[in-house]
Amino acid sequence: MQYISSSAKIGENVSIGYFSVISDNVTIGSNVTILNGVTIYQGTTIAENVTIESNAVIGRQPRPAKTSTIRITNTLMPTQIGLGTIVGAGAVIYAGSITGSYCLIGDRAVVREKCTIGDYVIIGTGSIVENVVEIGQKTKIQSGSYITAYTTIGESCFIAPMVTTLNDNFMGRTQERFKFIKGADIRNGARVGGGSIVLPGIKIAEESFIAAGAVVTKDTLPEKVYKGLPAREFRAVPVHELLEGEGN
Amino acid sequence: MQYISSSAKIGENVSIGYFSVISDNVTIGSNVTILNGVTIYQGTTIAENVTIESNAVIGRQPRPAKTSTIRITNTLMPTQIGLGTIVGAGAVIYAGSITGSYCLIGDRAVVREKCTIGDYVIIGTGSIVENVVEIGQKTKIQSGSYITAYTTIGESCFIAPMVTTLNDNFMGRTQERFKFIKGADIRNGARVGGGSIVLPGIKIAEESFIAAGAVVTKDTLPEKVYKGLPAREFRAVPVHELLEGEGN
Amino acid sequence: MQYISSSAKIGENVSIGYFSVISDNVTIGSNVTILNGVTIYQGTTIAENVTIESNAVIGRQPRPAKTSTIRITNTLMPTQIGLGTIVGAGAVIYAGSITGSYCLIGDRAVVREKCTIGDYVIIGTGSIVENVVEIGQKTKIQSGSYITAYTTIGESCFIAPMVTTLNDNFMGRTQERFKFIKGADIRNGARVGGGSIVLPGIKIAEESFIAAGAVVTKDTLPEKVYKGLPAREFRAVPVHELLEGEGN
Repeated sequence: MQYISSSAKIGENVSIGYFSVISDNVTIGSNVTILNGVTIYQGTTIAENVTIESNAVIGRQPRPAKTSTIRITNTLMPTQIGLGTIVGAGAVIYAGSITGSYCLIGDRAVVREKCTIGDYVIIGTGSIVENVVEIGQKTKIQSGSYITAYTTIGESCFIAPMVTTLNDNFMGRTQERFKFIKGADIRNGARVGGGSIVLPGIKIAEESFIAAGAVVTKDTLPEKVYKGLPAREFRAVPVHELLEGEGN
Repeated sequence: MQYISSSAKIGENVSIGYFSVISDNVTIGSNVTILNGVTIYQGTTIAENVTIESNAVIGRQPRPAKTSTIRITNTLMPTQIGLGTIVGAGAVIYAGSITGSYCLIGDRAVVREKCTIGDYVIIGTGSIVENVVEIGQKTKIQSGSYITAYTTIGESCFIAPMVTTLNDNFMGRTQERFKFIKGADIRNGARVGGGSIVLPGIKIAEESFIAAGAVVTKDTLPEKVYKGLPAREFRAVPVHELLEGEGN
Repeated sequence: MQYISSSAKIGENVSIGYFSVISDNVTIGSNVTILNGVTIYQGTTIAENVTIESNAVIGRQPRPAKTSTIRITNTLMPTQIGLGTIVGAGAVIYAGSITGSYCLIGDRAVVREKCTIGDYVIIGTGSIVENVVEIGQKTKIQSGSYITAYTTIGESCFIAPMVTTLNDNFMGRTQERFKFIKGADIRNGARVGGGSIVLPGIKIAEESFIAAGAVVTKDTLPEKVYKGLPAREFRAVPVHELLEGEGN
């Protein structure tokens, strides 16, 4: 009651649920648990100790619309899921993306193609990570957040729930916009509050703290708190709350 | 390893993945690709050259709760998916909705019943389009946006990521509200910025540009930029960024 | 073309779709309809007259990441789905949660572990209800909203679409934060407008009305309307719009 390609390589102590599909040339390490209704597309590599919950889809090819901005220009590497990572129910991870070790990709989260995700990263329930995003280790993206294409997020960042990041000030109009499309550049230890909005190309400096509901229209300074619409500097982040502070 | 009803009509060169279900009286055109774990409910029509990614659900019947505002009053037409349209992984399209040709319905997007979607429309990843929504051709709705019931969106509009539209100023209270429930009326070429909020019954005029994070509480004027909470007129949209401008 | 454990107890007049999985010790009442590709994990109890749409996942165990805040400390009760409840396509309900009778859990909604949901509750399409949330009867949570862990919502509340609730002012930093993590306390009859944001530990009083797009940073007073960033008191809720008003 599964389909497992004869060219798939399956490690020891692997459990594959009902009605799951393991396609050609997939490699699955030892001690992997795959639940029901999962599809793993061809060439995907799953490291040891990974868990993939029901109805997840791994290694899906991008398939742009005729009017999509994105073009498929070169061949994608196969998807790689790192050691001990957990992929949630109904999550979708595209071809050409790599997760580090011990990541959590939440239920119904989507990670598009050409993303690189460091070790110990959490992508929350229902979050969307568009194409060509880099996320450093130990960063947490909470539930329902939207990470636009071409975003860079450093290490030990915290993206709270329902955050919006943007990359196109021209909103789909003019050919000129292609020169300017740019996601956020969120530096190590920065924290972006719930429901806040980060405009295209903004740099959020190291250890900046963006309050919930802020709309960030200008680059921020390190270790400062911002709030409001548009976001303005408000105060310094307390020393004991910095990454090198006590108890962190 | 599929279930295909004997009353389904399947065109030439159709590929149907593992553990997919094609119900009674479904019609599938030639050169259609259906991936794994897909359900297509009865009577649905799929035109030629369509692709349906894994775990999509097409033609689902609405089934309101006892306390839902919506009532099912008449029979729904079968779902129609237009020529060359792509339906993403885990997307759900209800009975009684029609997509045009060459649309892209993103992964995990939901399109409810009685929607009419024009040609070349993009509905982004995880977006929700409620019942009785009309969307004109070449309009793009980006990832994570919420289009409330009874919304009308014109042609060549751009709805950025994580936009919220609303239709009920009474928030579920009073019987009187049913007279006033009204979605947005978004006219041709209008653009609505990321994370912005459009209040019930608002008209966004032709080629209006709503900045990211704005809360639109009044009707807008054509070719004007609005921003803030509440949104206020800020400047004109530059002529070269209009639909008839150079390079568009 | 299903998998049904021999230890499952199935009532009369139960319909189970293609490629669905009913695990060990599941109990399903009479007149239940389960569509295609559904997984129901072990020990789950489904009451009579329930409908579960395609690709829903019921009774999923939590599986925190190495860096998750949440810890699994005790055994979870099996999931219980109440009489006449409808569970949408692709929805995920965790082990240890209970829904009342006649609830609607929308398509792609996620309800985490240890939640208690009263009778006649609606959880909208794509909404996320995190762990340890209590929701009183007749409350409606509209599409795309995010209910953070440890939130309490009373009876007959209305949470509009795309609302964000938060529980951690420290955004994942300091050990001290664990003492202060606290969701919203939303009292009977309160209404929270579309796209608004409720900060950690805020009490929204009985029958308060939060306008769309507000950012609620302080506790509110009963029967008052709030709007803005930060939200400020604006006027009283009209008497005829209160729960005991005419026509309600």
